[in-house]
Amino acid sequence: MSIHPCADGVWEGLRLAPGLARADVAVGAGERASLVVQGGVLRWVGPSAALPAGYARLARRDGGGLLATPGLVDCHTHLVYGGQRANEFAMRLAGASYEEVARAGGGIVSSVRATREASEDELFALALPRLSALLAEGVCAIEIKSGYGLTLEHERKQLRVARRLGQALGVTVRTTFLGAHALPPEYAGRSQDYTDAVCDEMLPALAAEGLVDAVDAFCERIAFTLAETRQVFQAAQRLGIPVKLHAGQLSDMGGAQLAARHGALSCDHIEHLSQEGIDAMKAAGTVAVLLPGAYYTLRDTHLPPIAQLRAAGVPMAVSTDHNPGTSPALSLLLMANMACTLFRLTVPEALAGITTHAARALGLSDTHGLIAAGRPANFVLWSVGEAAELAYWLGHNPARTIVRQGRIVKGA
Amino acid sequence: MSIHPCADGVWEGLRLAPGLARADVAVGAGERASLVVQGGVLRWVGPSAALPAGYARLARRDGGGLLATPGLVDCHTHLVYGGQRANEFAMRLAGASYEEVARAGGGIVSSVRATREASEDELFALALPRLSALLAEGVCAIEIKSGYGLTLEHERKQLRVARRLGQALGVTVRTTFLGAHALPPEYAGRSQDYTDAVCDEMLPALAAEGLVDAVDAFCERIAFTLAETRQVFQAAQRLGIPVKLHAGQLSDMGGAQLAARHGALSCDHIEHLSQEGIDAMKAAGTVAVLLPGAYYTLRDTHLPPIAQLRAAGVPMAVSTDHNPGTSPALSLLLMANMACTLFRLTVPEALAGITTHAARALGLSDTHGLIAAGRPANFVLWSVGEAAELAYWLGHNPARTIVRQGRIVKGA
Ligand SMILES: [Zn+2]
Ligand SMILES: [Zn+2]
Repeated sequence: MSIHPCADGVWEGLRLAPGLARADVAVGAGERASLVVQGGVLRWVGPSAALPAGYARLARRDGGGLLATPGLVDCHTHLVYGGQRANEFAMRLAGASYEEVARAGGGIVSSVRATREASEDELFALALPRLSALLAEGVCAIEIKSGYGLTLEHERKQLRVARRLGQALGVTVRTTFLGAHALPPEYAGRSQDYTDAVCDEMLPALAAEGLVDAVDAFCERIAFTLAETRQVFQAAQRLGIPVKLHAGQLSDMGGAQLAARHGALSCDHIEHLSQEGIDAMKAAGTVAVLLPGAYYTLRDTHLPPIAQLRAAGVPMAVSTDHNPGTSPALSLLLMANMACTLFRLTVPEALAGITTHAARALGLSDTHGLIAAGRPANFVLWSVGEAAELAYWLGHNPARTIVRQGRIVKGA
Repeated sequence: MSIHPCADGVWEGLRLAPGLARADVAVGAGERASLVVQGGVLRWVGPSAALPAGYARLARRDGGGLLATPGLVDCHTHLVYGGQRANEFAMRLAGASYEEVARAGGGIVSSVRATREASEDELFALALPRLSALLAEGVCAIEIKSGYGLTLEHERKQLRVARRLGQALGVTVRTTFLGAHALPPEYAGRSQDYTDAVCDEMLPALAAEGLVDAVDAFCERIAFTLAETRQVFQAAQRLGIPVKLHAGQLSDMGGAQLAARHGALSCDHIEHLSQEGIDAMKAAGTVAVLLPGAYYTLRDTHLPPIAQLRAAGVPMAVSTDHNPGTSPALSLLLMANMACTLFRLTVPEALAGITTHAARALGLSDTHGLIAAGRPANFVLWSVGEAAELAYWLGHNPARTIVRQGRIVKGA
């Protein structure tokens, strides 16, 4: 059904971004590289001069010296929701108190209300331009969480929209069930009852429908306790579904250790994280997902423990955390810049954070986040002189050509 | 020579952004508005239902309920330069000291060297994609400063490129001579000699060639003294050219008062600014140009005195300060978001800051920054529900249609 041309052929005359490609034949410094695409799959990566004879008859595509990276991966988003909260943003700046914003219908409950009121088609139409904005920068895989429905019916609706978005736009979508995002108003004071509903009713039903690639929870003073989070993880484990966790955004509840004990794919936010948590994540192979857009928007001042994560060798990913309240971000490159500027990641760390490590945070290490033979053809050609420019420019998209799922979705 | 279609006709079914339009007939809340364009000029603004009969036979263009604002104005940029400094950005993050960066050829001297080495055509080719990125968000007028040439020959080259960019892309460009940007290496220890050259040789020659719309200086401990700045202003005044000033970025040198005494169009940066400076600016009608991209990139913590500027009624503009060292920003909407998030401007202040007040900072109050009859047709139609979304989304460009100089340069 795609209207985009097939990317098969030999893409030649490229430069490979350091650390983001695995060549079949080593590419020397300053040497131009080729990528062979056949049947929508990368077949060979190496110096243009060393192209195996068997590929010589394929169509040639001139890469014009552009810089090639794998398709970007946005590994933490709440992309599907009703409404938006620009009015709340404006009210806060105009000096409105928290109560005034709440009285005017602001806060997460407003997103829950708007999401419940919207039909599946309406949610799809609202999310489409947001996803398109992210894809325009070369995103080729994205995680989309539920968590604004908070009932079986409305969580299902969010996750179905996430699946439809992936099919409609031809992009890898990983769905994450985040029923334990916030306590819905109708369960006020009955947190345990709601957790039981999440674990015993919502999750099993949604998993049976094939809508749940991973399970997430928000472990925080203002959300769910460590015990409730454990209950959610155990329910996921019974179904054989991997887990991840919103942990340490406001305080250290010990969520990272709990997540690591359950072999979590990732712990996300982690501005507040102990050495014990870091060690547990390292031992479990859990990725640290950094969300500088939320840090920036909330004017947070408590930095995640980057130096300790780096010293421990915990892989760090970087994501938009796209959501209407605390990170209305629609540029993963801007998040890479913020990860450098605000969190002091190095440029190679930031670029691995939006590719290789982000793929790992989604359990997609074998298919995304690296240019290598045997993987689906997802890559971006950038009109930049050097890879560092991808994190350096502020509010700029130098993507010239995007190949997603073996199709040329942008450029020549 | 434009390849873009003419925008003449009746643009109907629009919403007008509050505060950014002057209607000929008042538009009620919730009422749809029309803009009449004839001969590339806005002829009438008012409710679609009240369109004067004389315009009834013009071509109709369905605005589809989009939000109309004036074209954006970026009133402070250093857009024309050789090279870029992504490598310096990467080195700093990797822990390189200031000396190591300097030894590797970093710092402003590297931009001066690269600008001097580049031909006029090379500088044009380098600036073109940067300007295109800004225009894609609806910028219709932009200031471009010299200041990386620092000799008559190379400052002329920068300003000529700025003029050519305006002609090639069909956008209003205001050139600013910033010879007093930094002391060039060949004048080390001879600041007064260089200031004399700026005032007595460079400025008169460039002004005679019609390359100087305004004169700027960098008044700072690390740049030019108050006395040298006064000398530059006096030289500008002799030629009848308006002045503006980089003031108070690192310290308060009293530059704002000096600038106000010379009737400056604007004082820019002004993180450090006394009440005396604010009062002088108010009295002189000088615009305060806020540059949050540099504040963000430098991780500055000293906020400009927003509350005092607001209380005094000094108009505040917001700009990218695009430059390769301290603000490689190519999105004016992102600057509006940063002005809100980091500087706590209200949304209406931020939107006036990238339109009406930015036009005033360039002496373009009569032609840009407001939708009103009698002005050249420069406007943007946005696919947003409310104006606050223009500052709310982070790294997103919702411009659907752009009319610049009476031409439809984007969209229907
Ligand atoms: Zn989140
Ligand atoms: Zn500047």
